[in-house]
Amino acid sequence: MRINEIETPAPLVDLDVLERNLDRMSIYTAAHGLGLRPHIKTHKSPRVASEQLRRGAVGLTCATTHEAEVMADLTGDILVAYPPVGAARVNRLMALPRTVNLMVALDSAEAIESIAAAAKAANRPVRILIECDLGMHRVGVTSIEEGVRLARMVVERPPLVFAGVNFYPGHIRSPKADQQEPLKTLNHDVQDWLRAFEKAGLKPGIVSGGSTPTSFQAHEIAGLTEIRPGTYCYNDREIVFTGAAAREDCAFTVLATVVSTAVPGQAVVDAGAKALGREPIRSGAGEGFGELLDHPEVTVKGMSEEHGILDLTHSAWRPKVGDQVRIIPNHVCIVTHLNDFIHGVRGDQVETIWPVAARGRTARV
Amino acid sequence: MRINEIETPAPLVDLDVLERNLDRMSIYTAAHGLGLRPHIKTHKSPRVASEQLRRGAVGLTCATTHEAEVMADLTGDILVAYPPVGAARVNRLMALPRTVNLMVALDSAEAIESIAAAAKAANRPVRILIECDLGMHRVGVTSIEEGVRLARMVVERPPLVFAGVNFYPGHIRSPKADQQEPLKTLNHDVQDWLRAFEKAGLKPGIVSGGSTPTSFQAHEIAGLTEIRPGTYCYNDREIVFTGAAAREDCAFTVLATVVSTAVPGQAVVDAGAKALGREPIRSGAGEGFGELLDHPEVTVKGMSEEHGILDLTHSAWRPKVGDQVRIIPNHVCIVTHLNDFIHGVRGDQVETIWPVAARGRTARV
Repeated sequence: MRINEIETPAPLVDLDVLERNLDRMSIYTAAHGLGLRPHIKTHKSPRVASEQLRRGAVGLTCATTHEAEVMADLTGDILVAYPPVGAARVNRLMALPRTVNLMVALDSAEAIESIAAAAKAANRPVRILIECDLGMHRVGVTSIEEGVRLARMVVERPPLVFAGVNFYPGHIRSPKADQQEPLKTLNHDVQDWLRAFEKAGLKPGIVSGGSTPTSFQAHEIAGLTEIRPGTYCYNDREIVFTGAAAREDCAFTVLATVVSTAVPGQAVVDAGAKALGREPIRSGAGEGFGELLDHPEVTVKGMSEEHGILDLTHSAWRPKVGDQVRIIPNHVCIVTHLNDFIHGVRGDQVETIWPVAARGRTARV
Repeated sequence: MRINEIETPAPLVDLDVLERNLDRMSIYTAAHGLGLRPHIKTHKSPRVASEQLRRGAVGLTCATTHEAEVMADLTGDILVAYPPVGAARVNRLMALPRTVNLMVALDSAEAIESIAAAAKAANRPVRILIECDLGMHRVGVTSIEEGVRLARMVVERPPLVFAGVNFYPGHIRSPKADQQEPLKTLNHDVQDWLRAFEKAGLKPGIVSGGSTPTSFQAHEIAGLTEIRPGTYCYNDREIVFTGAAAREDCAFTVLATVVSTAVPGQAVVDAGAKALGREPIRSGAGEGFGELLDHPEVTVKGMSEEHGILDLTHSAWRPKVGDQVRIIPNHVCIVTHLNDFIHGVRGDQVETIWPVAARGRTARV
């Protein structure tokens, strides 16, 4: 099938670009002796996860229980980088196959008590990472003392195993020059935390950091053992704005059709908020909700649920009803979550189709 | 099952409120002799659509081909209020069961030629509405002359049938006093259009308007034969801001669990952008991406993919890790689209679960 035969809106992944992105991160982490534990939230796909494992990933990172269930078919080393809070969530984690050597990141005594009781009842070891807040201020213990206290709680509650610490440097949005100071601070803070844990006799075996924007600076953070980037497999407009990837590294586009040019000065495509997501550009002065692959000067300036409004004011290009366009989305992880199937393409040919098997919350009711 | 046993994040619909909302719109339209053709994009569910038909809806409105395929099991009167552009889309429409007396809204000669050729090849009548732009400036012909010209094109291309006109008053966001002038203008414009069509010998049998914010003013627009509100079944924070529904008319909430309070001054719940959508309030000065059902002063001030940050600065309430909350989303149609199943609840009991059967783009690859 050729791309122009696909019903739109439809998500496309350029397989050449995907493979190049996967190779690059594998080569980088191998060169620096860093473990690569990709976060699969970006693709939610066993197909892509297999390619990551084939290229040497040490395991996979998941956020939801459903993601962990799906990825349990592929690897025995799964990190659920999400607090195990709530009986339903904990029970589902305990129901993962025994072939999985589960690891969980958390930041509260409540979460420790909850997973400790479940692990004991199931007689199942669970490795615990203490999540530290190193500047993003979303989750994670904010003091070293609290981190050490939680690690001690873990040690005292077998079959829990204290495996190490993790953090997410989500406040560092770019490898650019103006972000060197935050990166230095981060490096400094990591050393402080590691020294304190070591002094307490709780040397972390795993020190897990990373994000796509900071990936290629990870080797500058002493003591880091692994990184958990997600978006690098597909990249998106946001990542290009951060400077962590080039425009030609964007593997994922939304194929759309021009459905109306009736209102002068604009063109309407069939990719709206239900196909593109409504994610703003956070890094830099990017406007709109996506830009055209073949016309970078044209952005999606507004959206309804099933309509995207192309801003033609900076372009001489004038589309006709029926024309197809490819849109680079702002935030690809959200777009993946909106779709059930991905079309893998090379050139103008659809080579393969894969399900977004870990999308949604549950495989069953 | 009780609500507090559900794994979060999870979408809940209060069945008492849903039924009251459905009743109210049916009673209103019946009282004014208006047809009610609900847009099913809000619920994407045969369960809710059946309730709408049972209460006298004349048919259903869909946007996507997949929505039409699913709803074809329930009614023979389906309006696809979306331009039939692109071979894949048109072929899928023609493959709807013959029991469906299909109607399609469009605004271009290209769309007419495309659906005319397909209808002729399939030997299948298709009713056409000419979509008019009456102020929203999204889709729709912008001049009466162009509208009449397209209607003539339809008449000349059997088995297409010119059925009437439609418009979407999306620019009128509220039934409040400051919107009375736009409503008067709309009423005036509708009369102009109808007179012109009649003068051309093309009296529209169907004059289809409506939106949830303008629903209860629909009887003030002379000549209107039916309305197509969608959101009224569930309502949401946006609709409450427009004044078209009260807070207690919000049937839909996202159940979430507090997963972290580690960072002082905030609480983190497990409903982020992948559970709530990132839709701003368009009407009025509403902030955040949702508000708590039981603590209206608490909004979701920020989100990551799987994290929502509750703003506690205006509240004395301090949640603990493990507490459950219910969030009224800003724009419920987007939240429906993120979920595969809905929990129907009464009080604190889960009474039923239904699939969001028309979610996504396709039932198969």
